[in-house]
Amino acid sequence: MQLQFLGTGAGMPSKERNVTSIALKLLDEIGSIWLFDCGEATQHQILQTAIKPRRVDKIFITHMHGDHIYGLPGFLGSRSFLGGESPLTIVGPAEVKDFVEATIRYSKTHLTYPIHFVEVQEGVVYEDEHFIVHAKKLQHVIDCFGYRVEQKDLPGQLLVDKVQKFGVPRGPLYRELKSGRDITLEDGAIVRAADVLSEAKKGFTVTILGDTKYCNTSIELSKEADIVVHEATFDSSTTDLAASYGHSTNTEAASIAKLANAKNLILTHLSARFLKADIERLVNESQTIFPSTFAADDFALFELKNSTLMKQ
Amino acid sequence: MQLQFLGTGAGMPSKERNVTSIALKLLDEIGSIWLFDCGEATQHQILQTAIKPRRVDKIFITHMHGDHIYGLPGFLGSRSFLGGESPLTIVGPAEVKDFVEATIRYSKTHLTYPIHFVEVQEGVVYEDEHFIVHAKKLQHVIDCFGYRVEQKDLPGQLLVDKVQKFGVPRGPLYRELKSGRDITLEDGAIVRAADVLSEAKKGFTVTILGDTKYCNTSIELSKEADIVVHEATFDSSTTDLAASYGHSTNTEAASIAKLANAKNLILTHLSARFLKADIERLVNESQTIFPSTFAADDFALFELKNSTLMKQ
Repeated sequence: MQLQFLGTGAGMPSKERNVTSIALKLLDEIGSIWLFDCGEATQHQILQTAIKPRRVDKIFITHMHGDHIYGLPGFLGSRSFLGGESPLTIVGPAEVKDFVEATIRYSKTHLTYPIHFVEVQEGVVYEDEHFIVHAKKLQHVIDCFGYRVEQKDLPGQLLVDKVQKFGVPRGPLYRELKSGRDITLEDGAIVRAADVLSEAKKGFTVTILGDTKYCNTSIELSKEADIVVHEATFDSSTTDLAASYGHSTNTEAASIAKLANAKNLILTHLSARFLKADIERLVNESQTIFPSTFAADDFALFELKNSTLMKQ
Repeated sequence: MQLQFLGTGAGMPSKERNVTSIALKLLDEIGSIWLFDCGEATQHQILQTAIKPRRVDKIFITHMHGDHIYGLPGFLGSRSFLGGESPLTIVGPAEVKDFVEATIRYSKTHLTYPIHFVEVQEGVVYEDEHFIVHAKKLQHVIDCFGYRVEQKDLPGQLLVDKVQKFGVPRGPLYRELKSGRDITLEDGAIVRAADVLSEAKKGFTVTILGDTKYCNTSIELSKEADIVVHEATFDSSTTDLAASYGHSTNTEAASIAKLANAKNLILTHLSARFLKADIERLVNESQTIFPSTFAADDFALFELKNSTLMKQ
């Protein structure tokens, strides 16, 4: 799993930061990439990375503000032009469907793949055998959702030397054991799956929050998460202003991560007012509350290695 | 007058060329900038130039394909965010209004200025005391228009020493003469404006054509123009293919400029297939037909100096 930031600015693009988009790269896990938000020029940012648009099979939208959605039509059109034929799922507010269908229709675009729209509501918005994604409504000036992506625990590996010791014949019984089910051999002996499997590996949890002021929902979504991505449009000197605009500060984000007992925090959606030195200060302030705080820059690539977050 | 290319690619952005947008800078003439088309990330390109979004008071759209319009919502929102309060006129196909209104509505954007939409039809689409803009329908796979911007002739300057020789008293009569009207002095003597004004200066003509296959309309719009901006999505080895996609080649563009007796030709809408050496070849081939041919790159700035086109 890798997390690559494609746009880390707030409201408008600047020379340093594009508007919001984050790629959750699950290539090793399921061969897919999931985007979270798709601000204008997300496809341009992708040109500077190793991401192939046809690998993106899910896009989660936090809310309908332009700096989070205006890149959708262009990305969808180019994914088609570049040979994308596999279905794409877009999870987001109901109006995302209207927005995408209108822009595609007005621009006479023909897409070579189907789009499956899922209207985000509180609860489970996606589940398969490897992942489950929960959503909850945050507190912004318009409806805005946060997403919690949980990888399901990985089953243990079949320890072949142990299976052989128990005299299990190769074939269907191997598969039964691998699936975690106990089996009975022809001679009536029972072989327990737990005895021939290595320990299950705990899956990771990544919580990606949209624009929001400080709220308890952010804590709930972030509980024990390996990574929490939280906005920091303002700094601690302007806490009241942040809340009045439906945004948060760096130290509020740190408090959320601390109260949630999360492992790592990445600050994004950083105002263009913040220069390089300001960003260092934002991180330092946050670290006094929650030590494992990072700031995202455009194209920054984060990777979890044995529960430790590495910024590449 | 300056012409700055903000995007010179075809269909999709590449690392070298963004999708279409051209800025006609009329700062010396009327303090305004006019955009022609507004592909995705036009506002990002503008960040790299001296252009101030609030100075843009007209946008002409050639056609509804995404690579010519997807930058509109973001540009309009940022123009507002950056303090733009003066009205903006958008000239284009009727659906531009629907597209802009839908995207602004779905993204809950509040614009701080009014937009005046003008549906493009063949004929005069804009006129004021300094400029007149004609449009005509080209031949593309969907309705697509070309625009001919004519600066009206600049009246001659009042030659003060001559006026004084005729004994004209300072004041209203000066203004009459400057406006080109003859006057009668108190003693009955007639002073002809033509005798006290320097020669009128001919205005320039810039023709900006949208996506099109080779067609006579392009020649009509380009007649005697100082600058013709013509697409060259294909090269002369793929003329049939170009026409089948509703596009043109470099040598077709050169023929248009030659037959129109234009003064300068700029090739744009260049496929990402064309590398640097290819572009040189395209220009060289065009020059065998029409010597004063240039190719546009992103951010290239062209300026007319005494009827000679300079690329800065």
